[in-house]
Amino acid sequence: MTATSQHHWSADPAEVLRVGPGFRLSDVDPDSTPGYEGGKKAGEKDLASGAAQFDELQERLFAQSRLDDGAPSLLLVLQAMDSAGKGGIVRHVIGATDPQGVHLKAFKKPSDEELAHDFLWRIEKEVPKAGYIGVFDRSHYEDVLIGRVRELAAPDEIERRYGAIADFERRLTEGGVHIVKVMLHISHDEQKTRLQERLDRPDKHWKYNPGDVDERQRWPQYMDAYQAVFDRTATEAAPWFVVPANAKWYARLAVQALLLDALERIDPQWPAADFDVEAEKARLAAT
Amino acid sequence: MTATSQHHWSADPAEVLRVGPGFRLSDVDPDSTPGYEGGKKAGEKDLASGAAQFDELQERLFAQSRLDDGAPSLLLVLQAMDSAGKGGIVRHVIGATDPQGVHLKAFKKPSDEELAHDFLWRIEKEVPKAGYIGVFDRSHYEDVLIGRVRELAAPDEIERRYGAIADFERRLTEGGVHIVKVMLHISHDEQKTRLQERLDRPDKHWKYNPGDVDERQRWPQYMDAYQAVFDRTATEAAPWFVVPANAKWYARLAVQALLLDALERIDPQWPAADFDVEAEKARLAAT
Repeated sequence: MTATSQHHWSADPAEVLRVGPGFRLSDVDPDSTPGYEGGKKAGEKDLASGAAQFDELQERLFAQSRLDDGAPSLLLVLQAMDSAGKGGIVRHVIGATDPQGVHLKAFKKPSDEELAHDFLWRIEKEVPKAGYIGVFDRSHYEDVLIGRVRELAAPDEIERRYGAIADFERRLTEGGVHIVKVMLHISHDEQKTRLQERLDRPDKHWKYNPGDVDERQRWPQYMDAYQAVFDRTATEAAPWFVVPANAKWYARLAVQALLLDALERIDPQWPAADFDVEAEKARLAAT
Repeated sequence: MTATSQHHWSADPAEVLRVGPGFRLSDVDPDSTPGYEGGKKAGEKDLASGAAQFDELQERLFAQSRLDDGAPSLLLVLQAMDSAGKGGIVRHVIGATDPQGVHLKAFKKPSDEELAHDFLWRIEKEVPKAGYIGVFDRSHYEDVLIGRVRELAAPDEIERRYGAIADFERRLTEGGVHIVKVMLHISHDEQKTRLQERLDRPDKHWKYNPGDVDERQRWPQYMDAYQAVFDRTATEAAPWFVVPANAKWYARLAVQALLLDALERIDPQWPAADFDVEAEKARLAAT
């Protein structure tokens, strides 16, 4: 675990946060900071040094793909209840690297055209190409989360989707897309505090949606739907990680560590030149 | 010029860098740092403080658009000879803000499908939506730059395009897209140094393309083609700015200042809530 070896991790976040057999969401304390020995101040410092590492690995990943269409890519799937901090992850973790190598997609309520297709149709189009770091802010998992809680599809269709997702993700990973799935886990109380703040501050009103309270009223059903997601779609190829997110600094640091871990396993290399370097030097010198 | 008032600017970059009547590209010294009194160190410090300002204005721009589909957007068009630093602008200037509010598009050699349409067809699709900061890394101007130098289209078609571009950009600005067009201007010698470095360093080989030297051999024709672009498409609605770019720190600072100037003219405001704030507070409190 070279990514985090000089830091304050006492355990590998890719191990302690991973959804394994027998995982129960209700056992996770949203206030906890699993595997990390430092506090907020140390965490912010570690986030900054991790950012430099993330940036370098991203450049290699991108470079490697320029001469190889079959080179790997990385896909971060972000799911959470409202106000859990998805936006902060994009801004503070993903935002630390070159925007030119990032493909970010926020999935909203499906359009009529999207609804006329299978639920994975709009997802497939946004899978990151070779060399890119893709980020899904919400994803196909909405179709088995709000889809289940709000009964937007029949129960047998919801059942079908779990299997379709597992097949889909296996196909992506076989094609070189490394998938990291993260649920940011805040508590019911913490969400109340955060929504309250959005209502209290006029410069945050634009982030508030009355629908957020509607979904909040179905909190237990959502937790059940997440549990079903973990039971059915946490695979070897595309693991789920549940990140306690009441402490924003911890959530950002942990997601960064998960991405660093994935990038180090990819271990991207600078590509060899596909031209004659000496000949080009001579050609350039003559100009 | 509040954007730069505490900084080391002695003149408004939006004035001194702007292509006005009688502008001659050959009069611009790529080593110069027009309007800026500080050196590299001061410039880097000013870039960092400008980044915070840029980030705040971007958030307001984005927020404003959430409740208003007709809200303004900002489009930065970046043109330059190879190695002039477009990528560095994206990384260090644009990269300072939230990736969620940025729409970045690098235009490569057109595909067969794109060539089967008018040259503006693929451009139109990438115009930033309300609230977004769009960045074109190369653009429709390639169709009158390489298009002219390489004679990829007949002279009368090239002629037609200048007018079509002016009409297109006027339509965009009337629709709320604020356009800032920037040419990063490096010297012939500086390009040689930079390409040489790419050849000398194995970790930079992926950035080198033998075609870069082919285009370099046509340097004077490109300068003429840029001059024609300025003569024909520098309009009140969509001005051109030529930014001396031998000093990377200056180019980044200057482009940031141009964007800050545009954002301040847009003057985005936090939107008023489209819901009953007190009623929502009560609803939330009850959960």
